[in-house]
Amino acid sequence: MKLARFSHGDSIAFGVVDEEEHELVVLKADPMFAGFETTGERVRLADAKLLAPVIPRSKIVAVGRNYRDHAAEMGGDAPSEPLLFLKPNTSVIGPDDTIALPRQSKQVDHEGELAIVIGRIAKNVAEEDADAFIFGYTIANDVTARDLQRSDGQWARAKGFDTFCPLGPVIDTEIDLEHGTIETSVNGERRQEGRLADMVHSIPAIIAYASSVFTLLPGDVILTGTPAGVGPIVSGDVVEITVSGLGTLSNPVRTAEL
Amino acid sequence: MKLARFSHGDSIAFGVVDEEEHELVVLKADPMFAGFETTGERVRLADAKLLAPVIPRSKIVAVGRNYRDHAAEMGGDAPSEPLLFLKPNTSVIGPDDTIALPRQSKQVDHEGELAIVIGRIAKNVAEEDADAFIFGYTIANDVTARDLQRSDGQWARAKGFDTFCPLGPVIDTEIDLEHGTIETSVNGERRQEGRLADMVHSIPAIIAYASSVFTLLPGDVILTGTPAGVGPIVSGDVVEITVSGLGTLSNPVRTAEL
Repeated sequence: MKLARFSHGDSIAFGVVDEEEHELVVLKADPMFAGFETTGERVRLADAKLLAPVIPRSKIVAVGRNYRDHAAEMGGDAPSEPLLFLKPNTSVIGPDDTIALPRQSKQVDHEGELAIVIGRIAKNVAEEDADAFIFGYTIANDVTARDLQRSDGQWARAKGFDTFCPLGPVIDTEIDLEHGTIETSVNGERRQEGRLADMVHSIPAIIAYASSVFTLLPGDVILTGTPAGVGPIVSGDVVEITVSGLGTLSNPVRTAEL
Repeated sequence: MKLARFSHGDSIAFGVVDEEEHELVVLKADPMFAGFETTGERVRLADAKLLAPVIPRSKIVAVGRNYRDHAAEMGGDAPSEPLLFLKPNTSVIGPDDTIALPRQSKQVDHEGELAIVIGRIAKNVAEEDADAFIFGYTIANDVTARDLQRSDGQWARAKGFDTFCPLGPVIDTEIDLEHGTIETSVNGERRQEGRLADMVHSIPAIIAYASSVFTLLPGDVILTGTPAGVGPIVSGDVVEITVSGLGTLSNPVRTAEL
């Protein structure tokens, strides 16, 4: 099942995507907290603007170097334990929203990633129980100011600028992790390609590890790392990240206005 | 003016501290968003349990190595620009709440700090305008698993465990930054001592810098760095951090139960 958050006219609502009819079945409230009661309305997908499907109230946790080929291109091995960092919720934008390149950086890179949306309070979760805490999956772009990442050492600034966490287009409650693929293209040209099964630390392992540190709250998002092929984006580009079965997250790129 | 968030019986409320009468003047709602209308009630301070005066809905931003003597004890210089990192809001606890030492670390340190509470949406704020975005000040303990800070490289885990951000006891809307001092003691023995005027990057400079990266939201908290003297805390300790004029933040320390 695919879930969207969207604006339509003056209102913002949640809906279930009816892929055959190209419509949204409107829900009474956020299904993460209020279930799946419908209002009886339907909105054509073409008439809705999709928004980030979730705005974390607490954390965006991200895992660094979680595909071996990307760890190698960054000049190292994949770490033996998940390497965690945080992005602020003020970095979140939705599908088709603009990634703003800040004046402080001379090289901003795309990093296409599968994202986990947490649905229940999770602390010290065992790997074998992790599935029960997953609300669904979405796509993320872990946009990174590569030069500042190197010069700061800590990644909070380089990965935390406003607009540096596009999320969407929808939350899919089930995906094929065994056969699924993730691809990132810029202006239609493929830049990154990976198989979700090639993550170094699996999704249950990441949830177990992260929840041994932080209490994860409903709506928290975990970015699971990016495959090889990261590279710069410049003003005028369009970045598209596709996860098979889930959809495509597309965002234009512009230089930030101060 | 000193503002508190507190529980009293079954309810949680905000109040203004009446220091002469040792009472809380109860407010109708969170003064950050709803002003200072009172309910007409008063609660004796002795009958209230003070809570963390704010739970950030977005970010806790922290500044590393912002006192020269602490940068030196960590084996380096103070950075020429503020070194930013993030702590999650799930790490926040209140006055007298217990700091839980996680099984993953063999050395957890105290870091007493002055914290800024942001009161208005702030983006690209000029230093000279920074004051207008400050709601007030509180005290923070930037609790740090020193061994994991070194081994992870990224500080998200080492500084992000549940209970690793005690805040309180109150928000003071005005403090003496020119003459103010900050002291941290463990079991009554002084460990850290600093003058607020000795920060490398001033509070206006920090707000200007952080707001050039992140949009700061009302309730965001900025930790301004710790002076020299950081050191380990162990189960059974009590950590007290005092900022002159503001008050004392006291927290006991225990080994976490899994």
